[in-house]
Parts: sequence; structure tokens; C-alpha cells
Amino acid sequence: MDFRSDTVTKPTEEMRKAMLNAEVGDDVYGEDPTVNRLETLAAKILGKEDALFVTSGTQGNQVAILTHCRPGDEIILEAESHIFLYEAGAASALAGVQTRPIRGIKGAMEPSDVKKAIRSDDIHHPYSGLICLENTHNKAGGKVIPIQTMKAIYEIAREKDVPVHLDGARLFNAAVAAGVPVTEFTQYVDTVQVCLSKGLSAPVGSILAGSKSFIKEARKWRKRLGGGLRQVGVLAAPGIVALEKMVDRLAEDHANARQLAEGLSTIPGLQVDVDGVETNIILCNIKETGLSNEQFLTRMKEAGILAVPFDDGVIRFVTHREVTGDMVQIAVQRIRQLIG
Amino acid sequence: MDFRSDTVTKPTEEMRKAMLNAEVGDDVYGEDPTVNRLETLAAKILGKEDALFVTSGTQGNQVAILTHCRPGDEIILEAESHIFLYEAGAASALAGVQTRPIRGIKGAMEPSDVKKAIRSDDIHHPYSGLICLENTHNKAGGKVIPIQTMKAIYEIAREKDVPVHLDGARLFNAAVAAGVPVTEFTQYVDTVQVCLSKGLSAPVGSILAGSKSFIKEARKWRKRLGGGLRQVGVLAAPGIVALEKMVDRLAEDHANARQLAEGLSTIPGLQVDVDGVETNIILCNIKETGLSNEQFLTRMKEAGILAVPFDDGVIRFVTHREVTGDMVQIAVQRIRQLIG
Amino acid sequence: MDFRSDTVTKPTEEMRKAMLNAEVGDDVYGEDPTVNRLETLAAKILGKEDALFVTSGTQGNQVAILTHCRPGDEIILEAESHIFLYEAGAASALAGVQTRPIRGIKGAMEPSDVKKAIRSDDIHHPYSGLICLENTHNKAGGKVIPIQTMKAIYEIAREKDVPVHLDGARLFNAAVAAGVPVTEFTQYVDTVQVCLSKGLSAPVGSILAGSKSFIKEARKWRKRLGGGLRQVGVLAAPGIVALEKMVDRLAEDHANARQLAEGLSTIPGLQVDVDGVETNIILCNIKETGLSNEQFLTRMKEAGILAVPFDDGVIRFVTHREVTGDMVQIAVQRIRQLIG
Amino acid sequence: MDFRSDTVTKPTEEMRKAMLNAEVGDDVYGEDPTVNRLETLAAKILGKEDALFVTSGTQGNQVAILTHCRPGDEIILEAESHIFLYEAGAASALAGVQTRPIRGIKGAMEPSDVKKAIRSDDIHHPYSGLICLENTHNKAGGKVIPIQTMKAIYEIAREKDVPVHLDGARLFNAAVAAGVPVTEFTQYVDTVQVCLSKGLSAPVGSILAGSKSFIKEARKWRKRLGGGLRQVGVLAAPGIVALEKMVDRLAEDHANARQLAEGLSTIPGLQVDVDGVETNIILCNIKETGLSNEQFLTRMKEAGILAVPFDDGVIRFVTHREVTGDMVQIAVQRIRQLIG
Repeated sequence: MDFRSDTVTKPTEEMRKAMLNAEVGDDVYGEDPTVNRLETLAAKILGKEDALFVTSGTQGNQVAILTHCRPGDEIILEAESHIFLYEAGAASALAGVQTRPIRGIKGAMEPSDVKKAIRSDDIHHPYSGLICLENTHNKAGGKVIPIQTMKAIYEIAREKDVPVHLDGARLFNAAVAAGVPVTEFTQYVDTVQVCLSKGLSAPVGSILAGSKSFIKEARKWRKRLGGGLRQVGVLAAPGIVALEKMVDRLAEDHANARQLAEGLSTIPGLQVDVDGVETNIILCNIKETGLSNEQFLTRMKEAGILAVPFDDGVIRFVTHREVTGDMVQIAVQRIRQLIG
Repeated sequence: MDFRSDTVTKPTEEMRKAMLNAEVGDDVYGEDPTVNRLETLAAKILGKEDALFVTSGTQGNQVAILTHCRPGDEIILEAESHIFLYEAGAASALAGVQTRPIRGIKGAMEPSDVKKAIRSDDIHHPYSGLICLENTHNKAGGKVIPIQTMKAIYEIAREKDVPVHLDGARLFNAAVAAGVPVTEFTQYVDTVQVCLSKGLSAPVGSILAGSKSFIKEARKWRKRLGGGLRQVGVLAAPGIVALEKMVDRLAEDHANARQLAEGLSTIPGLQVDVDGVETNIILCNIKETGLSNEQFLTRMKEAGILAVPFDDGVIRFVTHREVTGDMVQIAVQRIRQLIG
Repeated sequence: MDFRSDTVTKPTEEMRKAMLNAEVGDDVYGEDPTVNRLETLAAKILGKEDALFVTSGTQGNQVAILTHCRPGDEIILEAESHIFLYEAGAASALAGVQTRPIRGIKGAMEPSDVKKAIRSDDIHHPYSGLICLENTHNKAGGKVIPIQTMKAIYEIAREKDVPVHLDGARLFNAAVAAGVPVTEFTQYVDTVQVCLSKGLSAPVGSILAGSKSFIKEARKWRKRLGGGLRQVGVLAAPGIVALEKMVDRLAEDHANARQLAEGLSTIPGLQVDVDGVETNIILCNIKETGLSNEQFLTRMKEAGILAVPFDDGVIRFVTHREVTGDMVQIAVQRIRQLIG
Repeated sequence: MDFRSDTVTKPTEEMRKAMLNAEVGDDVYGEDPTVNRLETLAAKILGKEDALFVTSGTQGNQVAILTHCRPGDEIILEAESHIFLYEAGAASALAGVQTRPIRGIKGAMEPSDVKKAIRSDDIHHPYSGLICLENTHNKAGGKVIPIQTMKAIYEIAREKDVPVHLDGARLFNAAVAAGVPVTEFTQYVDTVQVCLSKGLSAPVGSILAGSKSFIKEARKWRKRLGGGLRQVGVLAAPGIVALEKMVDRLAEDHANARQLAEGLSTIPGLQVDVDGVETNIILCNIKETGLSNEQFLTRMKEAGILAVPFDDGVIRFVTHREVTGDMVQIAVQRIRQLIG
């Protein structure tokens, strides 16, 4: 029972067959019909003029930063965002931008904090080159950044002429949780990256979407990063399945996450904010058990349950397609036993 | 009849089935058994301690440069090499290295020129951080860089303590043409990148090989470029087929290239150095036809034949798995007609 | 009466004459005897093996970062430090490092926060490449970072094998305030930058000090930034005067700052933490006056008094050689009038 | 007798006094009247809207490249230019641009070669971001790049929308040799850097000139490199003397160079292209003496004569203010003796 991440989901049978039968061509020449179909479909779903297949969420985010910014720009982003914590410093290494982290509440930066962080014109200051949002917010426990917050930040950004990028690795989870189409979120950003892997279960790949001119330039940066591929229709085909067939089922993952959170919250020593579980991520505080993260994870592993450590005393569980409601029940039982 | 590049080759049926059935896992956790099998296999074939799957030749080369060098280093490379001409300036954009091109003969830099280009210790000089070779050399017309040349350069490099990287996008073509295992070439470099796509026909992907410590660091740079993927066994599986089943058949491509060169050389107005066709690339000089590259390519296209322009008055033809001997015959006939 | 910064201090007559008579040579060849004398003197005073003249504090800090780090490293620094706020994003633009700001108390990062910010070994993480301290801390109001704090951070850093750099633009102010030699502070860092301009009154220049091998490499980076100069003895000569004659007199600036703080604190509407004035910087909260920063500064300017805005409602005053005790008295009187 | 470089020239008495008496202010606030006067004067002389004091020729060139280009751009420059050979790889390290060297004739790139090197629009290509010229050309032996060549390149550049920068470290030598004002040259470039040190004898500094908007942005990049200084009027003052009083006297250096070249050419074993000595640099081929560069320079040094090695068997002599006609005569005599 693998609760480490929704990234572990394997492709479905339908995806495998889509790969088998995909019509392909050389995408560097723009001749892969399946890639072209995926990019058109994704642009439409995301409400942007154009879209680009990239091999990972990190690549999508980095290409966005490289395209929006110049070296010496500063990017404003949440203090526990993926771009800041988990992309190995790539934004500064590749694009030469300075990171300006803002601590949010449940992953959401306060619009007023964003406003204050935008630099005035002064020889000592970097230019504020980009605002990055993350929705849902992983480190905050899969929290949905409210549409109203995104709107408020976007209005500030437009007034100050700073573009906004959305790391929407799990944006479909946000949309399903909010019961709205993703465009309700993406209308308030200039560019967006969404993952086809994770909950949507494609084996590999993400989408970066934005204006036509933005995507043209992004394509060059993708090439520089080595993301210009050949018969990549074999990856685009399951990506199309992901977008067309896999979005609605995220609701099951959310229900399972709720159930898991409730179960864990009844175990003495574990603390879970059950109402805070908005999507498919559960943060479980284990401090009262007296166990270290490592000890807790080792015991779980022996009981056939995998999860990952977050901060000190906090374990993250993620639900996904390969975790059923029954498995959630069993997991809760076993964890109860191993703590006792 | 598509002679533009061996990159247009579509995956074989066996590759498609390998994708369908590939056992996969999350490669970021090191748990994709098919990727692990590919990397072990490739390291062995290339005679290096370790290997890394990357999504393209460009990504393999760039990760190599990023891992070998620091900003302000200078890399020595052939004046018409792929890294210098066709990677969109990525080496300087990403790794901050200065390019020092040396004009070679048939793609091969003279060892004495390489020696002279290595910088002495002086506050005004960059450090010489890397020597890059390309074998076979695309722009020179698929020429094999002789093993003796590689050896001589490697000896100079070791004496001066400068590492050597080989862009071996078509190294298997070189080995098949020379009738030797690839290790005869790779013994004279520290790191090597080989493509699984191109003549070997995998849909997507390349291998970067080197020492264990080098590959560990390269893995981090791959992550920064967005090349850390998930269930990428779906790409590794056809990659294994490419390495195990597709190398020997490159000889057919070479034979077809020879035949095509001979055919073209008999057409009035076309000039081909038939003896210079060592692998699967033919450079055809069309200047005497009085046609521009564009006119020539348009007429060919109308006759169902695709190729690409190189320099002014030079057209490149590439043979590959999807071009048969019969097609070569027909192509020559049609070209004869359209010139006449 | 210019309280904007100690950077406005003009060279003394003795400095001017030192320039006039300086024995000079071509420093790129290492032949400027006055520069050599300055660098030897500075290394000794700072307790390091070697030292390098640089043209500004920013250049000293940036050369340090470029020499210590590789792109993709993360540097840990205080959230309101000069390197983070006021060097135009240079650390990321030039060295490709990611900034990880930690909010300190009176400019001092908590050692435990620094410890937590050092990254563990994980493919998703940047390497922690450098810890930067600032002493005195400008934005915190000229606060002295306690030697014990520096020691605690240095011990953590050594344990984790991360180097420590000190932005000591006003380190001599810290030493004079603490009544100790600067080596009491510099013993707990690997490298240090100190300004010869600011309170010490040299017209131009700073010193970067560290180990011999560090300074050798720093010299190359200085060259790349265009800081390798020729007959720069004309700047080194007043720099020697600054180090030999101007340090002790900083005590006067501190006394004047105390006096100014006390004076301002008696003016209705102004709030100053008098006890918090440790060196030559005073932060004055003007919110209760109902005036904006701009209005306040305009009125002061009309009264012949200059200062600079910091945060919203906060004005910074700096004392220095060209501000006498009498001027402080007059300034307080005039400000009292213009507020009334 | 120091023929190593015109960079060794010490400031004149007038320059020393100008430093002593310079009215200064804090240039970061734009308040140094002497700097402002120098920048206005330099812009006028160079025929550009605005100008910026920088601390060295390298800094001027690097700031120009950083301001003109984005990472991933390619800069076209002569294969033996200072930017390519002697700035320690800074253009790639700092600005992330790829260097595309073109071999010129007597330092002058053929306009047709420049035209061919400008990249077409293709996903594989970097953008051509800047063309750099050098006049006079140091490595070619102080050759003047003809105005007609500059004009032809500029016309190509404008057609292709690529800016042109001139490394005019010794541009005043070119103008004096050609007997025209420097604007005859600078009219064919967008930006230009000229040195105030070298032949003009200021102790430190260069000027970067261009359009108002260019200089505004350049000022930010200068700040990032640590070139934003304080009471830098002490350097600007001798810079003004350099521009106003020292240009015409370069004719003496050229006459002395001619005389030295003629003298050397009469010494058996030495070969000098006397007619090729256009300004103040002499290249002397010593191969027929059977001495290595090192042996030759050692013997000269023992005879009190300094020069520098260039390529294998080539020694560079440079004339300047501190070398008189008499010294040239004596030098020739001594060299004749030490060879014999």
C-alpha cells in the first residue's frame, strides 16, 4: 500500500494500448500528430492560446521561468512551494533569478504580502520578474488556493506589470475539489503547468500553457533543456487519456483521503486536521507517539505501508488510483496496531 | 521516402510491445526496474561504470557539460559540431561555459590544434574545462573520427588534466562502420552520450555514461533540467530493444547510403564524394544544377522525396530503417528525372 | 546635514595627499606596491591569510559567492540582509545560486534556524553552498551580531561542511561598539568583506579576505567582473589611511548616533529605540506624525536635513565623520520644529 | 624600459593634482559632479547620447554584453579579440552567451563572414545577439579596423537587427592614426567602450557609451558587478585630463613605434612588418634567432627591457608616454647586442 505519492501510479491498460497504437512522427519537425492533438486539447482545457508537452512538472516550471524572466530578476513564490524547496535550485542555476519566498497561510500567499514584495524602481533592487503560485499546494497538505486569492494576486500583478505563473502539478485536484472547471483558476494566471502523471496516471509528462508568443519562446528553452523529443506521441497518447478520462475520478482519491484522515485521527498519538484534507494529501503529526519519523516509517514499511516524511514529526500520505477504499481501511487498522 | 534524418524512424512492433508490457515504477525513487535494466546494460556496452537515461542527445550533452564544468570554463569542440551549431547555445546559457571551436578535417580536430587551444595558467584566461568530440560527425557527413585521433586527443587531455566528452549520438554507426565494439572508441573518453532514437529506432531517449561519481552528480543536473521522470520504463523498454536488436542492422543503412551516393553521383549536376560516405549520411553538392537548395528540395518533395539543406548548395540525405534498397533505387531515378 | 549614509563621507585631506603621492604600478601584473601593502595590512588586521582589494562591498560579496559556490547551490542569509535586498539580485544573476532568507532577530539569524535550513542529501534539494552573515546589520539598524551567535553558526557550518562569509561592510563599527579587535568576529567565518569607504571615509573600495587558495580564485572572478585594475594604488593609498587612522574615530559616530536618537525620541510623534542604537544607525518610526515618509523627508530637506526612507513609516539616519555633535543638536531642534 | 603594455603608464602630475582637488560626491546617488562631468564629456566625444564610467575595459565590455544579450544568445567576434581570448570567459560565465569567433584579416572580420555567421530562425539555433568589434585590434598588432569595414558590418547588422558593440580600448589610437575624430568610427556601432588608462595614462577606468535607455540598464548591470562606486570623482578627474589633454600625444607613441619597428627590423634574426605598424604595437618574430620566447625575454630583461610573449615565437612591444624616442634607440642597440 503505497501512500508515498500519486507519482507512483502506473499507466492504465487504456494508456498502455494508446501507446501501442499511437500514430507518431518527429516532434522536432512538428510532425507528431498525437503530440499536436494533446497540445491542442490541453490548451483548450486550460483556457490558453497554446500549450507545450514537457517531460516533467519541474521542466514545465523551469521553462516558464526561463521564458518569463531575465537573470537578475526576482521571483516571488510561497516559502514552501515546490519550485523553492524541491527543484534543486534550478530556477537560480538555469534562469539566474533570485528567489523571494513569502510565507503563506495554508499555502496561499496573502495578496498584500505579494504587493509589498514587488520591488520599486531602485538601482539596488532586482526587477520583480514573476509571481509563482502552486495549486493545490503540496507542502501545505494538498490545500486549494482559493480562486479569490488568485484573482486578488493577479490584479496586483497586472497593475505592477509582473506576470503570474501557476505550478498546477495538481490543479485538477483543486478543480475537482472546488467543483469548477480548471479555467476558473487559470483565468487568473498568464501561464500554467499541469502534470499528466500524478493523479491522472500518465507514465510521464506535463503541459505548459500560455499565449502563442510565450509558447513559441518556451519551445526554444525546452530544446535547450533537452526536452525536444522525437516520436513522443508514445507519451502524448496516454497523456490524452489522462486528460479525457482520468480527471473526474480524482474525486475518489479525495474521498479516500478523507476516510484515511478520519481513520488516522482516531488513533491515539496521531493528529490529523481532518477538515483540512481538501484533496488527496494528508499530513499526519506523529509527535505524541514518541517515535521519530524514521522509526514510524520503518514500522509502517514492515506492515506493508509506505509514506514519506515531511517536516520533523510530520508524515505525508497521498491517495491515488492504486489505493482503494478497502486498502485505506486496512492501512488504518495496521497503523493502529503498530502504534499501540 | 524520407531522407531527412534517422530521427524520423518510428518504433518497431517489438518496441511497441515492449512498451505495452514494460514493468514500471517511479524512477525518481530509483524503482523503475526497466530503467535500471537499461542503465546497467548501457553502462556495460559502453564500458563505463554507470549510465543514465536522458530524454535526448541534447540533454545528455548538456548534463555532461554542466557536470564537468563550472561557469567561466572554456570547452574545446569542433567548429561544426552539434553542440556548437545545433543546441541553441545551451552550453553557454545553462553551464556558463565559453565555446572554443576548432575547425577539423572531416570532423576530426587535429590533436595538435587541441593542444594549442588548451589554455595556460593566466589571470586573463578561462580554464579549459572540457574537450568535446562528435563521432560520427554529422555536419561532416557521417564521418568516423578515427580511433587513433581520439587516442591522441585523450592523451593530451590527460596530460593537461582536462576531461573529454563524446557526443556519440551516432556512435554505433561509427562502430559498425569500423567493425569494432563501441568500447574501442569510448576507452578514450571520460563520458559519452549515445542516442537510442536515430538509427536504433527507439521513439525517445539517449544514454549518458561515465564514472559512478560523475553519474551521481549528472542525475542532479538531469533533475534540474526536468529530466527526472516517473514511469519512464515505458521509454526504457524500447531502448533496451534498440541496444540489443538494432545495432547490427545499421550496416544495411550504410550499404544503402553507399548505393544512394553512387546513384546520385551519376546524375549530371550532382556531386557526391562516394568514397567519403562512411556511414548513413550523404552530402550532395547541387551547385552545378543551377538550382537553389529551396528549389531543389521543393522539386524533390513533389516527387515524394524529403531531405534537408545543409550549407549553401549542399543537401543532406540520411538512410535509416524505413528506407529500403528499393526505395533508394527509385529515389535515384526520380531525382535524375527532376534534374534533367 | 547629510544623514543618508556614511557612504557620503568624502576623503580626508590626508587621504587626498596619499593619493597624490602614492607609489603605483600595474596591479594586473601584481606590481602596484601600494595595493600590495594594503592587501597585506588588511589580511593581518582581519586575521586571514590573504586579502584582495575590490571596488565595492557588492563586488566583494559577489566575488565571495562566485568563489565559494557553484550554480544550483543555495545560500542561507538573513531576510533583510544587504546581499538579499540591495545587490540587485546579483548573487543569482552571476553565481546562479538560490537565496534562502531566514528572518533574524535584530539582524541575527537564530543558529537553530540556520541548522534547519541546511539541506539534507536528496535529489530534489539544492546543495547548501554558503551561509552569509552581516555585521553590523544595516536594515536592523546597525545592530551588532553577537560573537556568540557567530560562533554557534560557525560550529554548525563546520559540522555540515558549509562555508561562512561575512558581509562586514561596517564590521569596524561592530568591533568598536563591542570594544574588541575585529578578529574576535572574523575568527568565526571563512571569508569576510569590509568597506574602506563608509565610516572609514576612503573614497572607493573594500577588502575581501580569506585563505590563500580562496583569494587566488577570487582574483580570477574579480577579473571577470572587471575589477582587475591598473594603477589602483591611487585608491589603495587612502584605503591604508582608512585602516590605520580612521577606525578608532568610529566611536564618535556612535556617540553622535546615541545623542541623535535621544534627541529624536523626545520629539512628539517620533519613536526611537534609543537603547537599540548600538552603532551609527538610527531607525526612527514616524507613523504617529501622520506624515508619509515622502512628506517627512521633504520637510526635512527644506530644513537642510537629509535621511532615507526604510520601511513604510521608518526613516533611517546615519552618523559619520562629516556630522558633528553640534550638527546633531541643530538637526534635532529643526526636526522638532518641522513636526510641530 | 617597459614595452609590455601601455597599461603600465602612471598618472601624470596633472592627473595627480586633479585627484587631489576633485570635487566629489556619492555617485550611487548620482551626486559626484566630477563623474557627471566626465560622463557628459565622454558621451559628446564619442557621439552617443549617454556614457557610464566603469572601472576597466573588461567591465565595460561585460556590462555591454549583459545589457545587449540574453542567455542563449550567440555573440559574433573576432577569433583573436580581447573579449574572446583575455576576459577569462566572462561573457559566457556572466551573460550566458555563446561565443562565435570569426577569423579576421589584420583583426578585421570580413563583412561577408559576419553575414554568414548570423543565425537563421530555427529551433536548433541560438539567437545572434551581438556583434563585437575591436579597434585597434591588440592581438593583430594594433591594427586599425578600416571605417569602411565597420560601415559594411553595421549595415548587415542593422538589416538583421543585431546590435554592434565596439571594444575601443585603444580607439583613440585608431582615430589618431587615421587622422579623424573617433565619431567617424563610433557612428557605425550602437555602443562603445574606450579606456582612459592605457595610452591616455589615467590610473584606472573606462567609458561605456550608448543610447540613454541602454546606459540606464547598463548602470544596473554595473551595480551587480560591483562597479557602482562612491566618491569616484577621484578617478573621474584624471579621466577628464586623459580625454582633454592626452589624445593628441598618442601620435608620438605611434612615431616611436615606427622607429622601434624599423630598428628591430635591421637586427639579424628578427622580423617585423614595419609597414604593418599602424599605431603603438609592434609584433616581432624571433624564430630565426633560435631563441624561445622565454629565453629572449629573459635576456632582454637582463638588459633592462621588458616586453610580453604573444604566440609561439612572437614578442609584443608597446610604446606609450613613458617611452621616449631616445629610449627606443637605446633599446634597439641593446637588443642588437644581446642577439649577436
